[in-house]
Amino acid sequence: MNHPTAQFLLAAKQAEIKALQQLSETCLLVTRISELVHQLQRERGISNIFLASGSELFALQRQQQLVHSTKAEQQLRSQLTAQYLQATESCNSSRLLSGVCLALQGMDHLAELREQVGKQQCTALQSTEAYSRLIAAWLAVVLESADLSCDAAISRQLVALFNLLQTKEYAGQERAWGAMGLASGQLSTELAERLLLLQQAQQHSSAVFLEFATTEQQQQWHLLEQATAAKQQQQLRAMIRQLAGTKAPVPAVSDLWYQFATERMDAMHLLQAELTAQLQQLTSATVDAAQQQLQHHQSKLTELAGLPASSGLTLLIDSSMPGLYGASVLPQPVGEQSVQAPSRSFYQLLSEQSQHIRQMHAELTDARRAITEQKLIDRAKLLLMQYKKLTEEQAYRQLQQSAMKQQCRIAEIADAVVKALKPVNT
Amino acid sequence: MNHPTAQFLLAAKQAEIKALQQLSETCLLVTRISELVHQLQRERGISNIFLASGSELFALQRQQQLVHSTKAEQQLRSQLTAQYLQATESCNSSRLLSGVCLALQGMDHLAELREQVGKQQCTALQSTEAYSRLIAAWLAVVLESADLSCDAAISRQLVALFNLLQTKEYAGQERAWGAMGLASGQLSTELAERLLLLQQAQQHSSAVFLEFATTEQQQQWHLLEQATAAKQQQQLRAMIRQLAGTKAPVPAVSDLWYQFATERMDAMHLLQAELTAQLQQLTSATVDAAQQQLQHHQSKLTELAGLPASSGLTLLIDSSMPGLYGASVLPQPVGEQSVQAPSRSFYQLLSEQSQHIRQMHAELTDARRAITEQKLIDRAKLLLMQYKKLTEEQAYRQLQQSAMKQQCRIAEIADAVVKALKPVNT
Repeated sequence: MNHPTAQFLLAAKQAEIKALQQLSETCLLVTRISELVHQLQRERGISNIFLASGSELFALQRQQQLVHSTKAEQQLRSQLTAQYLQATESCNSSRLLSGVCLALQGMDHLAELREQVGKQQCTALQSTEAYSRLIAAWLAVVLESADLSCDAAISRQLVALFNLLQTKEYAGQERAWGAMGLASGQLSTELAERLLLLQQAQQHSSAVFLEFATTEQQQQWHLLEQATAAKQQQQLRAMIRQLAGTKAPVPAVSDLWYQFATERMDAMHLLQAELTAQLQQLTSATVDAAQQQLQHHQSKLTELAGLPASSGLTLLIDSSMPGLYGASVLPQPVGEQSVQAPSRSFYQLLSEQSQHIRQMHAELTDARRAITEQKLIDRAKLLLMQYKKLTEEQAYRQLQQSAMKQQCRIAEIADAVVKALKPVNT
Repeated sequence: MNHPTAQFLLAAKQAEIKALQQLSETCLLVTRISELVHQLQRERGISNIFLASGSELFALQRQQQLVHSTKAEQQLRSQLTAQYLQATESCNSSRLLSGVCLALQGMDHLAELREQVGKQQCTALQSTEAYSRLIAAWLAVVLESADLSCDAAISRQLVALFNLLQTKEYAGQERAWGAMGLASGQLSTELAERLLLLQQAQQHSSAVFLEFATTEQQQQWHLLEQATAAKQQQQLRAMIRQLAGTKAPVPAVSDLWYQFATERMDAMHLLQAELTAQLQQLTSATVDAAQQQLQHHQSKLTELAGLPASSGLTLLIDSSMPGLYGASVLPQPVGEQSVQAPSRSFYQLLSEQSQHIRQMHAELTDARRAITEQKLIDRAKLLLMQYKKLTEEQAYRQLQQSAMKQQCRIAEIADAVVKALKPVNT
């Protein structure tokens, strides 16, 4: 056994541990972001009613909410500073940092927005738009974190969390539009269509959530959707569809709608909090396991160093390793390779690790596919907005309708759109 | 402009630079690996003839070749030590390090193999197999490097290089089997089929090479394939197909075959050396450009710090940013946003950078697809070898024939095989 070769065996394990530790920190960041997003969604809803009522309703609630939002912001900011600006090891993802920077720029201007809301200097729609952009910017950071994950199980939980947050965000937008429509009595056909679109978007995101959630999380989701609030909201949704095109304001129903939608969102928030707690447990357990493997490797290497150099299996004669097409020897099945007495050889330790790493990488592929598809859809939407001057809603609708017409998945349509519209490389 | 936000803008750029610098080092490693692989291929061919001739032929050439191989090995080893074992910043890819470790384990046992060859203690086939496994292990590291790349242009060149090396390796195996067959007069139908498979494998790899090569590199490839050596080899290939099943040794033709095949491989080596040289230039130019952008950012930030805080565009009011479905304002096309006098605002700097990073990431997707497909094929082959006890050749042939039958790409068949055979997660 050559010394540098053994060093590379340990270096590979150390790199895995380091990546997992960074991922563990990223998961803590994602937890803080999830909490801030929840508080911003509440603040958006409360500000909406405050503005629509001409400062008469929710003035106190708004003040209380600002305290919660500010607390969540401070916790996120100190996590960000500790993790990226004061850390000894610099983060190696420019995409994550750039996403954080964009969202922080929005946060820096939140005080101005709040002042405008307080003085009734903007409309409910303008305020809702601003909060929604800020929330979208933070959600993009969560998606980016999932993309950076090096561990399949953690990656799956991050994809589940992102899609739960995304579902909740569409629910928040549905709540906002529904409340505005019912309060003002402007239940236009256009608005009814928009609510339907937002319901379909929730279905899409929650389906991806369910695909990547644990069995327990899936059960909790089903309980949530069968709860009274969700059922009541379903009935109001049906009513709104029937009222589409009418023009009678029903402020009392608007309050009911807001209340049920909020209850449902709060239930999603509980699930989200459980998910982030489980994510923390999962990451520490994964780091611990990798560290134990490193210790195991180190003690094995010490043990092997004390033995005479065995002339056992090497890469060169391992017939289960690829190389020459038409090799004469049939490969031996894994696990039946001749075991070196008295101890397993260095090569076997190495083979196991390399198998483990390959396996980990392969498992990531599934979770990555969901992330890649989500990013494709986001990118196609953005390109349609820029080049065809569509709103985000129109862009999503176009993707969705093409997918229905061509009987394929939205991601496939998005892929075609990106290929057709992407800037030409020079 | 808030201070931490600007720090994140710079941190994102610094992360990009750091990733590019690491990539630049990885490209140097790949250059050294390419050279070692070339020398090992030569050593494999020479050892083959030395063994087949019972030490009569190529004894001197073999001694000379061992000097070249050892030099290439030493250069690679010092690069590896400097880059991974002595570096202050540790590498964060366990996959790359694990691949290096596996290949190094093979290198550690090369001396034993050489001794066996020198003493005629192994067959030409055994020696060829051992060298081929070692070469395959190094090629896997090159593929892994391409997968780690954060820059689309560099990634494309790495994919091109990997496929050129892979083409050359199949050519080397074709040379070995052809020479053995012609010299021994054992031109069985099975061997003829194997040669055809290796020619098809060369076609597949060279097609991917051409897809990712620059126009100049494509032209050089076409020149190479139209050169005398390649044409002569084509004629001998046709002859071998006709001789299939016959049993007359033609050692003189075997020499010719070896000579033309070697000439063609040497031409590929020249192209490979140009490719690695261009890769070095490309990486330094890319790092330089990113560093200039960082300086530009820094001076812009200083400039902006001296100005009164502008109430210009922010994320919250940028209607080209996604957020609320059904937002009322039509997005403005990029580039037509109102410019802040006298200087562009911090937000615009940020938007440009985030656009740049998104664009870079999107461009990577194409190159990544080729890598993912290659890894899928490799993984499917390995699973077929392990679970169905096929040789690598049989596994590849099965994938290829299924693809032909079902009129789809090998990667799609490989995907189906991986899904069917992958170990069940617990």
